[in-house]
Amino acid sequence: MSNPLLLRNVRPLEGEAQDVLIRDGHISRVGPALEAPEARVVDGRGGILLPGLVDAHTHLDKTHWGQPWHRHSAGPTIAERIANEREVRRRLGYSPAEQSANQVRQAIAMGTTHIRTHVDIDTDVGLAHLEGVLATRERFRDALTMQIVAFPQSGLLVRPGTRELMAEALRAGADLVGGIDPSSMDRDPVGHLDSIFALADQQGRGVDIHLHEPGMLGAFALELIAERTAALGMQGRVTVSHAFCLGMVDDAYLEQLTTLLIDNRVAIMTHGPGHIEFPPVRRLLDAGVTLCCGSDGIRDSWGPYGNADMLERAMLVGFRSGFRRDEDLEDTLGIVTQGGATVMEAEAYGVAPGCRADLVVVAGETRVEAMMNRAPRIAVINNGRLVAANGDCLI
Amino acid sequence: MSNPLLLRNVRPLEGEAQDVLIRDGHISRVGPALEAPEARVVDGRGGILLPGLVDAHTHLDKTHWGQPWHRHSAGPTIAERIANEREVRRRLGYSPAEQSANQVRQAIAMGTTHIRTHVDIDTDVGLAHLEGVLATRERFRDALTMQIVAFPQSGLLVRPGTRELMAEALRAGADLVGGIDPSSMDRDPVGHLDSIFALADQQGRGVDIHLHEPGMLGAFALELIAERTAALGMQGRVTVSHAFCLGMVDDAYLEQLTTLLIDNRVAIMTHGPGHIEFPPVRRLLDAGVTLCCGSDGIRDSWGPYGNADMLERAMLVGFRSGFRRDEDLEDTLGIVTQGGATVMEAEAYGVAPGCRADLVVVAGETRVEAMMNRAPRIAVINNGRLVAANGDCLI
Repeated sequence: MSNPLLLRNVRPLEGEAQDVLIRDGHISRVGPALEAPEARVVDGRGGILLPGLVDAHTHLDKTHWGQPWHRHSAGPTIAERIANEREVRRRLGYSPAEQSANQVRQAIAMGTTHIRTHVDIDTDVGLAHLEGVLATRERFRDALTMQIVAFPQSGLLVRPGTRELMAEALRAGADLVGGIDPSSMDRDPVGHLDSIFALADQQGRGVDIHLHEPGMLGAFALELIAERTAALGMQGRVTVSHAFCLGMVDDAYLEQLTTLLIDNRVAIMTHGPGHIEFPPVRRLLDAGVTLCCGSDGIRDSWGPYGNADMLERAMLVGFRSGFRRDEDLEDTLGIVTQGGATVMEAEAYGVAPGCRADLVVVAGETRVEAMMNRAPRIAVINNGRLVAANGDCLI
Repeated sequence: MSNPLLLRNVRPLEGEAQDVLIRDGHISRVGPALEAPEARVVDGRGGILLPGLVDAHTHLDKTHWGQPWHRHSAGPTIAERIANEREVRRRLGYSPAEQSANQVRQAIAMGTTHIRTHVDIDTDVGLAHLEGVLATRERFRDALTMQIVAFPQSGLLVRPGTRELMAEALRAGADLVGGIDPSSMDRDPVGHLDSIFALADQQGRGVDIHLHEPGMLGAFALELIAERTAALGMQGRVTVSHAFCLGMVDDAYLEQLTTLLIDNRVAIMTHGPGHIEFPPVRRLLDAGVTLCCGSDGIRDSWGPYGNADMLERAMLVGFRSGFRRDEDLEDTLGIVTQGGATVMEAEAYGVAPGCRADLVVVAGETRVEAMMNRAPRIAVINNGRLVAANGDCLI
């Protein structure tokens, strides 16, 4: 268990300046001019205290972060990009353990305390990516909370043997069952979804499905997902990632889909894509849908964007949503904090006494200013331990 | 005239490392291991040498940059935002001279050497904003090239007296004639455009028109603009800013509009908006249309976004365009460099001997990596003078 920490001069959620005493990995007291002679003192320099940022969707195993620049040349379809990825992976031969550690260090430096990562499981790489990411999870176990989704990137039914590998991945340490585009990838929406929900049910796991399918095709998959969530009593344990279709259907149908999501407590992950319609954030939040956000792929064979900074990601979601009012942008910050924490079932998440000390201190006058500035991270604390300071990961 | 400068160890457009000797405000030699004992030496640290970045559309007079955070609460329509702006302006009472200087310093620090700014001219503020920005232009005359567009933000015909103020603004130092949404703002597309083109013709100035009008309404205005450009022989001197309509019309009509733009050498400015359709960058570049890019409003009463970093702006244009290939992103960088320079008629722009020494050195392996990283600016040179180093404006 970590030693006591006294975080001086921070403004919880941009409130009045306070000191925060951290013991046994939790916030023990919050108040002015606290004394704790035995505690290590960290100067918060008047920064804003936020709960740790949550990157609820990324691909740690595939980033090129920290490696020489890779020129992108893949074609525009998902199938072309998957084929290109396989070719690039073989050619570059990067280690998933090393690469995932590179991104984790960058994420910690930027104030992320929780990551849900999808990890490729297929008949080409087998469990090699998972083993690398599991090694990274172990290596950073005191510095970051990580959930791993076993992700059939190349399809499930169309690549026989993948389902067995997925089951093996769950036994080996993956936490959740992933899926992808049940119609357009596996050519069998019912078969694909029945297969992954059965796996989740058998092993008592949550589900997180990549759904890029547009318009009515994607919306149909959402309906099937909600039906299976209800049938298996998996409310609150299912996330649909991307769900571009929610930004493409008409208002009346959107309302029906929103009701399905709420009734079955299905969460939606959006990373704020640049070039495609995406879920209507304001409307879903107002309806009470749980939203989370993630980096998605960072500088990998899919594209050159991203930097593991969830404040920047929140800014991009706001930018893409047309948000200008502080209220809307504060709610967007809520997506990369409480929203992600809900999806990841983070315990005792927050900045109040009793909460787990997973915290970030950012420079700035207000939370929204900090988002807009992608403000310097003064300190990052995970489970009561100082893991980054002044933008540098200390682990 | 500035003293000689020897810029050591830079990679022009990511080529081999070279030294660059700068005399009399121009690049005099480029080569390995140059000697010039009389020159001040600047260490480029192996960074990429680019021509200075061009912010071809911003609103220097209205930024809140450097001031306490302002909470945004305006409604969603342009009319509501203009009314809100007037109220906020009165309440906050910032000085256009001081505010424009704040943004200019930030822009210089980020490697911008050329700015085209629109400045509000209306019957409410009169020429007060112009006077402030003219003072800033004078103050930074050796550190930045600035063009000023007299901009009738609140409408031209609908606010009698504005046209006379515009003419006065041009005599007082504004360079170009601005305009805005001739149908939706002034309720008279022909009247509005005839008025601003007549003013430009009388005084021999270029034109730069804000065109937010969507779909066919905006496209009709584009046609009227092209007709007037042709009739007055103003080819190459007209820019249409935003032109969202180009992202909204069908393919066949887009081709007709593109031909009109090319035939009349009308340039298009896009800032890569977050929430609305915008001009199809790849298609317009392929057709040969001149594109430029700008910050638009930075942290003002219109919205909280922006930081005067044109590398970030280029990244956002690429992000919004769905660009992932390096070729496409290099062309996007071309929009914030050569494209803007063409629109601003910058003389001898580039990184070859004989070019004006308006330069920026950015850290990184490739130009696209530098865009993605919004990489540190090692040095910024304007007219042969070191104006920023390591991210700090020296002026």
